[in-house]
Order: sequence, then structure tokens, then C-alpha cells
Amino acid sequence: MIKERLAKLRSLMQENHIQYYIIPTNDYHLSEYVGEYFGARKYMSGFTGSAGVLLVGLEEAGLWTDGRYYIQAERQLEGSTITLFKQGSEGVPVMEDYLKSVLKDHENIGFDGRVIPAKMGCGLESYVQAHGGQVIYDKDLVGQIWEDRPALSMEPAFLLDEKYTGESAKSKLARVREKMAERHADVHVLTSLDDIAWLLNIRGNDVACNPVILSYAAVTKDKVYLFAHEEKFDAAMKDYFAQNGVCLMPYNDIYEWLKTIPASASVMYNKEKINFSIYKNIPAQSPVTDCENPTLLMKAVKNDTEISNLIKAHIKDGVAFTKFMYWLKNNVGKIPMTEISASDYLEQCRRSQDGFIELSFDTICAYKENAAMMHYSAHGDQNAVLEPEGLLLVDSGGQYYEGTTDITRTMALGPVSDEIKKHYTAVLKGMLNLANAHFLYGCIGLNLDILARGPMWDMGIDYRCGTGHGVGYLLNVHEAPNGFRWKRVPERDDGAVLEAGMVTTDEPGVYIEGSHGIRIENELVCRKGEKNEYGQFMYFETITFAPIDLDVIDTKYMTAADLERLNRYHKMVYDTISGYLTEEEREWLKVYTRPL
Amino acid sequence: MIKERLAKLRSLMQENHIQYYIIPTNDYHLSEYVGEYFGARKYMSGFTGSAGVLLVGLEEAGLWTDGRYYIQAERQLEGSTITLFKQGSEGVPVMEDYLKSVLKDHENIGFDGRVIPAKMGCGLESYVQAHGGQVIYDKDLVGQIWEDRPALSMEPAFLLDEKYTGESAKSKLARVREKMAERHADVHVLTSLDDIAWLLNIRGNDVACNPVILSYAAVTKDKVYLFAHEEKFDAAMKDYFAQNGVCLMPYNDIYEWLKTIPASASVMYNKEKINFSIYKNIPAQSPVTDCENPTLLMKAVKNDTEISNLIKAHIKDGVAFTKFMYWLKNNVGKIPMTEISASDYLEQCRRSQDGFIELSFDTICAYKENAAMMHYSAHGDQNAVLEPEGLLLVDSGGQYYEGTTDITRTMALGPVSDEIKKHYTAVLKGMLNLANAHFLYGCIGLNLDILARGPMWDMGIDYRCGTGHGVGYLLNVHEAPNGFRWKRVPERDDGAVLEAGMVTTDEPGVYIEGSHGIRIENELVCRKGEKNEYGQFMYFETITFAPIDLDVIDTKYMTAADLERLNRYHKMVYDTISGYLTEEEREWLKVYTRPL
Repeated sequence: MIKERLAKLRSLMQENHIQYYIIPTNDYHLSEYVGEYFGARKYMSGFTGSAGVLLVGLEEAGLWTDGRYYIQAERQLEGSTITLFKQGSEGVPVMEDYLKSVLKDHENIGFDGRVIPAKMGCGLESYVQAHGGQVIYDKDLVGQIWEDRPALSMEPAFLLDEKYTGESAKSKLARVREKMAERHADVHVLTSLDDIAWLLNIRGNDVACNPVILSYAAVTKDKVYLFAHEEKFDAAMKDYFAQNGVCLMPYNDIYEWLKTIPASASVMYNKEKINFSIYKNIPAQSPVTDCENPTLLMKAVKNDTEISNLIKAHIKDGVAFTKFMYWLKNNVGKIPMTEISASDYLEQCRRSQDGFIELSFDTICAYKENAAMMHYSAHGDQNAVLEPEGLLLVDSGGQYYEGTTDITRTMALGPVSDEIKKHYTAVLKGMLNLANAHFLYGCIGLNLDILARGPMWDMGIDYRCGTGHGVGYLLNVHEAPNGFRWKRVPERDDGAVLEAGMVTTDEPGVYIEGSHGIRIENELVCRKGEKNEYGQFMYFETITFAPIDLDVIDTKYMTAADLERLNRYHKMVYDTISGYLTEEEREWLKVYTRPL
Repeated sequence: MIKERLAKLRSLMQENHIQYYIIPTNDYHLSEYVGEYFGARKYMSGFTGSAGVLLVGLEEAGLWTDGRYYIQAERQLEGSTITLFKQGSEGVPVMEDYLKSVLKDHENIGFDGRVIPAKMGCGLESYVQAHGGQVIYDKDLVGQIWEDRPALSMEPAFLLDEKYTGESAKSKLARVREKMAERHADVHVLTSLDDIAWLLNIRGNDVACNPVILSYAAVTKDKVYLFAHEEKFDAAMKDYFAQNGVCLMPYNDIYEWLKTIPASASVMYNKEKINFSIYKNIPAQSPVTDCENPTLLMKAVKNDTEISNLIKAHIKDGVAFTKFMYWLKNNVGKIPMTEISASDYLEQCRRSQDGFIELSFDTICAYKENAAMMHYSAHGDQNAVLEPEGLLLVDSGGQYYEGTTDITRTMALGPVSDEIKKHYTAVLKGMLNLANAHFLYGCIGLNLDILARGPMWDMGIDYRCGTGHGVGYLLNVHEAPNGFRWKRVPERDDGAVLEAGMVTTDEPGVYIEGSHGIRIENELVCRKGEKNEYGQFMYFETITFAPIDLDVIDTKYMTAADLERLNRYHKMVYDTISGYLTEEEREWLKVYTRPL
């Protein structure tokens, strides 16, 4: 089947004088998660992982994917004639370098420019042109042969009331236009879905777990051109758009519209965030400002309304999680349970909370050694039965009108080893260290990361990822530009100065292959503390409310200060959520939040 | 007197068609400390501070200096007709901006290009040229009017034996030439005094406290042209030079020599480290590589011989300091003592150590509120009498054949307040936290700084400086590129990845204006720890051996881990140095290193 599809694609490539065709995993907005419509790479290769790029030549084809997917890709590519390139392995060239090594002079490269980042497209274009060839980016060849392609999502959009957002679109637009004026920009092209949703106080359901609307926006001094499918908006929303100077245009019209920008108009965008076709369709003679989208920082700094809503969302989420934990602890070994059935139970607990919309990401529910895989996901033939022993790691979250949540707890289902207790206690200490940091304004995640990671480093252990990421407000669960990380990773835009109002996760862990995985995750709001002659001090307020399993703690590894922090946290959890529980759950919570 | 000198300078300026003449505080090598010969700014302004730049116009003159010197400069400039510009104060333009605001089209700027950094000179030159004027940089006008100018230092140089350096100049040159080859450089121009001293294993006495030789070097593929005063070198050194392909040339000949570099030869230098005249005299058509000097990192990473020597130096230094502390604690209130006489006693203790050469910087000996000024220096009319109460802060170090030391201890001379004990204990905790860090290879100072600074931030206090700096080997006590700091300061080149063999100070503090100042400083050698699947772990070994005054510690602020670290340190101090003390000193040390 894959061979047939490749043959069809190659015949189209020949018609179009394309020697190599690139098929990445992106949507037109370079989103982290993409809808089914954007499954071209999966359709053409048979590989179903969430990351990878397929390069099809006239004779051969290659698929690049990272370490999470080596085994899966190897299996799924079998018999496809596609070669697997294990990205990140020693000696394996990156796709672009490989392509350059095989491309001959005067040969052409093709791709759908809407799914290729502008920077990557520019890099390829200048290389190919220097070798006498050209880049053909206006042909979606896979689209031409994909018979039963899923439709673009047409889910209805909705308006998010100011009681949730705390700021009108008018006010947000005024702030963005101020930034445009500072940079003498006449048109601001914005294609990141969460930025558009935030700016206009609208939400949708076009990407699973991300309540965004497939759309592009162009902000001018007095108008917003919103390119989106009209069918998604009801009359009230259209009224709202009219009141706010938002002109609704057909989704795909952005590309032709850009060509009509007068050459005298100055255009502002972030080249890191737009696709190559957007970039190419902006008149070449337009003066350009390439800068961070102003919405990025504005969106990350939650206002007081958003924060007080977020706390409400976290209370609901904490109640849901605590009910789940009560059920889990009391029923494991008594009734049949699997990773998936436990996830489902937790989802039910969330669904019965008022204002719940959907999960904010696919729940990670990983038993014992499965939890050592950071991106483990249970499914059909990989769904462990839960027994009354060992650890269960559950990383999950919800989308509520009052905001987005993300919480991880790792719980003992029965006896656990001393080593596990030692690791668990170290993770807990790290989590509490960071949550209790006091620091001067100006710090970035890099300054604070060691507070969380230190207890692991002291044991000669590391978790090979950041300590935390920004979280959106009823938006993406991974949100730039704040985060905690010890080493800058250029493609992770999470090195911003920590501003009051930013929400960041605090989730250190220990992952021992073949044995166990531990992660404890709370969310932190950055707050202003004392301002004195030394500067503005900052601190964090924890807004996640669920017990941290006392059964796995070994207090011999905790200092008096550690214990005080844990007890204070647990008292807050009990005080905050006990009123929303049944009598039995409350009694149980009392025990599970008792001071140590 | 100053007015007369300004008048003479202005008449020379007019002769040379110069409207503004700049006089900074640098030597020709942009050294941190400069010899008496380079006191032009002091001579022309009467201001004696260690930092500042004088701008002389035909009608007016201005002096820029920083907050440490506002009061002193105001006093010293009185009646001079020179306006004080308080650098760093709100609304005060930096010198270059001020100059641009007053300079008219077609006017010229002058300075001695040898004391102006290349970057600054280039910036001024392009501005002036764009306004129809020129930069005249080949005239040392102050030199022409300075009658009793101190001579350039002519102190004898000496060879540092391989038993001290651990690596021959031949081997170091081979390593530098390898780096030159990587960058296809034919000539490497090196003008930083400590880099030249390190590279050739030579030392001198041309700058107080910095055992360097006034010199420039140009390294080619098979020769080193060393520009220095021949009188400084004896026959044995000249032989050594001949054996190592080092051609001795007159100090000032570098400028003409540079002009003779063939245009085809590729030149490598660090533009941040060379002066403007050096930069201008390199043929404009030469291909240039502007990069960090390879010697910078090589010098910072001490080899095993250097480290074992350094430990010897620190044992001597610790013995000297402990003898001083014993004397101080036992005699204060009984015999007369001042900040200066105490410093002198300490210097005597160091001088009686074998292999001691000189102090590595002017001792800071600051009593009570004087210690709140980080750069306090006692002198004639500012020399507090020491009484049996309050804190004395002593920051000092020595130059030994076995290396350079830098240590700070803050000691109670009698009763101190509870607040002081609280602050002291916080400083101690921070110092110990950093010294006991375990971290993955790849960390920079920015990652670790909060370990030392955190206990102060937790109290809403900050020390407004870095936590530590690199230290040379019988070279400069402040050495790039390693250090601990929470915020990048572009002009401080101390953000390097911490490499095994680097030596860095660990010196957090608390400074309360008008009350007290506390600093505790140990030196740390970075070492490789376990290497496992997570990477290469690193840790620090403390190489400073002197008691931390137990009289000022309040153990109620210390955790069991803090106490264990302190007790372990004190046991090491006792075990390491007690053998070098008198019976009485040893008994005293036993008490002052007792476990808490």
C-alpha cells in the first residue's frame, strides 16, 4: 500500500520536475499537536509516531525520527522500501544534510510550503538555487493522491467571556498595536493558533486537547483580518467580530491576501513561527520587522482574573484527582484495573467537574517500569494490569473555562523498595525547593533549575528534560516563553525572565530504565514579593491541590525545612479541597495530608 | 596646578587640530591593574580613584567615574574646572554619548591609541568619520607635558620552572599553534600580560600584585616575537628564549613590526583584548580571525602539577592566616590594633612562609561598618582602631611560587548582635552549599550561583556582585573565563562552562550599610566525578584551609547537612595545617575547628 502511494507520488513528482519531495509532520501553523488532516507523513510512510519527516526521492525514500520512535518506526517501515534514519544517533546525517549530499546540480526540491517553517524553506531554497535548481513549494502533491483524506476540522468556535479572560480583545489589540507602532509596522502577520485565540478571546476545537481555531490573522492599525472557516462562527460571534474591527475571510485566502499588501506597508512577523508560503507571499519589497510576536509575552503573563480563575480550575482538578487517588488506593487489588481503565476513571472524575471541557493532553498513566519512559502511552496491546504493588505515575490535565491544568502524581499501589522511596523523596525535595524559591527579578529558568534538579544530581542521576514549562489559559498546555531548564536548548523558546503572572510547571523526576519512573508536578504562579534597595524580589505560589503520596516518602532523607514545606503544602491542600469531597474521601484525605 | 596642565594640553590639542582628547585609566594591555607610568588620567585631573575617564575639550572637561568614587572625585575635582559625571546615575550620559552630543561636524577627536580598547576606538572612529572629522590616535599628548612621569617598570623577569608550571612553553606553544592552524592563522597577536606570562612560563614584577612583564607577543608558526625591555632578562632567560624560538624585540617595536606583516598572512587576535593602535597597525588587507585567545581557556584549566602546587600554596596561606587569626583573637583589646596594623601583621605571617613572593592584591581589612563597603581600603586618615567587639572582615591573598591565593574571613573581635549571627550563618550556608554542589558537565556559573546566594535571597537581601571569580597561577587574582554570577554582565568574561581544573572563588556576603559587612571566601577546584549514562558529573574540592569563626555562628539556622559540611571542612583544616603551628596555636585551632 505504501509502495503504491510512493509510486503515485513519484509519478506526480516527475510531472512537476521534482527530484525530492519533503513531507514533515506540521500543520500550516507549526503547532505542537496537529489535526488528522495533517497526517500526510503518516499516510505516505505508514509510520504513526508524533514526530518525523519523510523525504521521497525518485528512486529511494528516507524517514527521520528521534529516539522515542526508533523501534516503532523500524517495525512500521518494514517492507515499505523507506529507509529509517535514526535522528540523533552518531553518524546519522540530519535530513537537510543528507538531501544536500544526494541532490545533483540543477535538480529541484518540492514540498507544500504551508507545512515547512520559513527558516527551513529559506535554507533549502538558497542551497538549491546556488546549485542551479529550484524549490517548488506551491504543490501539495500528497493532497492530490490522498483519496480518503480526513476533512479539515470544522468544529464550532466560541467566545470566551471577559469574566474568564480578564481583558477585552479591544484592549489586547490596543496593546499589540502599540508594539506595532514602536516598530513602525503597518501589518502584523500572526499564524500561531494560540496567539490568535488569546488575542481575540475566542476558542475552538480544531486540535485535540488544544482549544484553538484553525486560523491566520493580519492585524493592521484599525482592522484584524481573520482567515478562518466562516461555518465555525455563529451570529453572535460575527457581531462581536464586527464590533472589534475583525473582518472574517476564508481560511486559505491569507496566501493571496498577503500578495496585496502595498509595497510601502511595513510588515511585522516572527520568522520562527510562520510557514514558508506565508513568508514567500509577502511582497519581497515590503520593509520587514522580524521579531517575537508581542502576544507571546502578553499571553504568558496571566492577569488577576485569569489567575483567580486558574485557582478555581486547579481546585476542581485537585478534587477530581483526589477522588481518583482515593478510589485507586482503596480499590487496587480488589477490582480489575489497567493503565487505561485507571485513566478513564480519572477522566470521569474530571468530566463531573463543572466547567470541564476536555483533557489538556493525553493522560500518561504508566505502571512500574513503563513510567521510566517519559512519553509512555498505554494503548491496545500495551496496557499493564495494575497490581497492589509498585508505583503508578499519572500525568494528566484538563481544559476548563477557568483555565488549563497539568498535574503529575506518582503513587504506591502497595509495597515499594527502599530505593524507590529514596528516589521519590529526592524528587519531592527538588519539587519543594523550586516551589519555595525567593529570587530577584531578572532570573530566568536557568538560574533556578538546580533547585529542583540538585537532589537528583547529588545522587548521580539526571532527568533528561527541562524541569518545567509554561502553561496556557484554556490554551496549549505547553506555552512559551517561560520554563525551567539547566541548559539552553535553542529550539525551546523557554528562557524568558520570570514575570509576575507567569504560570510554570515544576516537575522534576527520576527515571530508571526497566524499573520505575517518578515525577511529581505542581504548577507555580510567579508573584512579586518585597521590593527593597536590592531590587524586586519574586516568589512562587503553588496552585495545584492534590496530596503527594506519603506512603512513598522516607523522612530520613528530609530536613526539618523539607518537612515543614511538605506539611504546609498538605495543610493547604486539605483546607482548600476537603469541602468538595465525600465524608469518606475527606477522612482519607486527612490521613494522606497529615503532617510528618 | 590641574588648570595649568589642562592649559598646556589644550595648547597641544590646538596645534594638532584636536577638539576633544580622551584620557582613560588603561595601560597598553588593558590590564585590570596598571603601573604608575600609566597615571595620565590621575595626572591630568587630580582624581586618584582606580577607575575613570577624563574628556578634555578646548573649553570644558569632564570626568566619568562610578559609584564607588562619587564622593572622593567630587572632593578631588574641586577647583579643577573639571565637571564630574556620575557614571551609572540616572540621566547621566556615558562618555561616548556625551562626546557625540557636543562634537560638531568636521571636529577631531584625539587619544593615545595604545590605551584605548580597539572596539571603543573603532566606534569613535566610525562616528567621527561619518561627521567629517577624524580620529588622531598616534599622539600621547599627556606624555609630552608630563615632566616627572614615572618610568616604565624595569623590574627583572624570571623563569618559572616546569616543577611549578607542569608544562613547558614548547608544549603550550604547540597547543596554541594547533588552535592557530584550526583557524588558518599565520600570526597570533597576543597583548594580555597574563596570557603571555603563562604561555612562555615567565614572570616579572611590572604591576603591583600581578607578577607579569610589560610585553606584547606575536606567535607565528615557528617563532614567537616577544616585545619587551631586554634589560629585564638575564643570560639564562635569553638562552631559554633562543631554545624556544622566542625572538626578543624592543617593547615598543610591536607597532612598527605589525605593519610589516605580509598582506597574505592571516592574523588572529581577540579584538576585545587589544588596543586601538595595535588594531590599526595590522595591515588593513590582512585576513583576520577575531576570536577568544586560545591561552585564555588553557590558562584557566590548571594541570595536575599546578593543582598540587596550589594546594601547597594554600596550606602555607592557611597557616599564615590561622596564625594571624590566633594573634588577633588573643590580643584584641590587650594591645593597640588598627585595620592597617592588623593587615601588616597578616602580611608578616605570609612573608615568613617559604616561597612567598608578594601579596596578590591590597589587603581589605575592614572593621564594623567599614566592611559594608565592598572595596574599602584603609589608609592614612581612614584607619579604624580595633576594639574587642564587632566584626572584622579580612580579604587578602598571596603570590607564591606554588600559586596565587585569595581568602576572606570575617571574625568576631568580641560580642556581636543576633542579627549579625543570623547574617553570618546565612553567608556560611551559601558558601558551603556551592562548595558541595554536584552537577553535570556543561554547567556555567549562572546555573550554580543561587546555591550560594539563595540563603541571602531568602532573607530579602542581596550582595550586588558575583559570587566568585577565577584565580590565576602565580598570576592575576581575577582571571577569566570562569566565575559564579546570577546575571550575565557582558564586560565580565566569566560565563565559561566549568571545566575540571578551573579554580574559582566562592565568596557570598551580606553588606548592611552603616552596620556590618560579612564575606566568607574559599577557593574551589573543579573536579570530575562519576561518569555514567547521564553524563559527566562534576564537583568542587575546597583548597582553602583556615577556620571559619565559630563565635559568629548561630546553629539554630543550620540544618544537620549544613553542620555536617562545616564540621567536615573544619576537620580537614585541622588535619591539614595543625602540623605547621606552635603548640598554643594548635590547641587554639582545635577549639576553633571543633565539631558543632
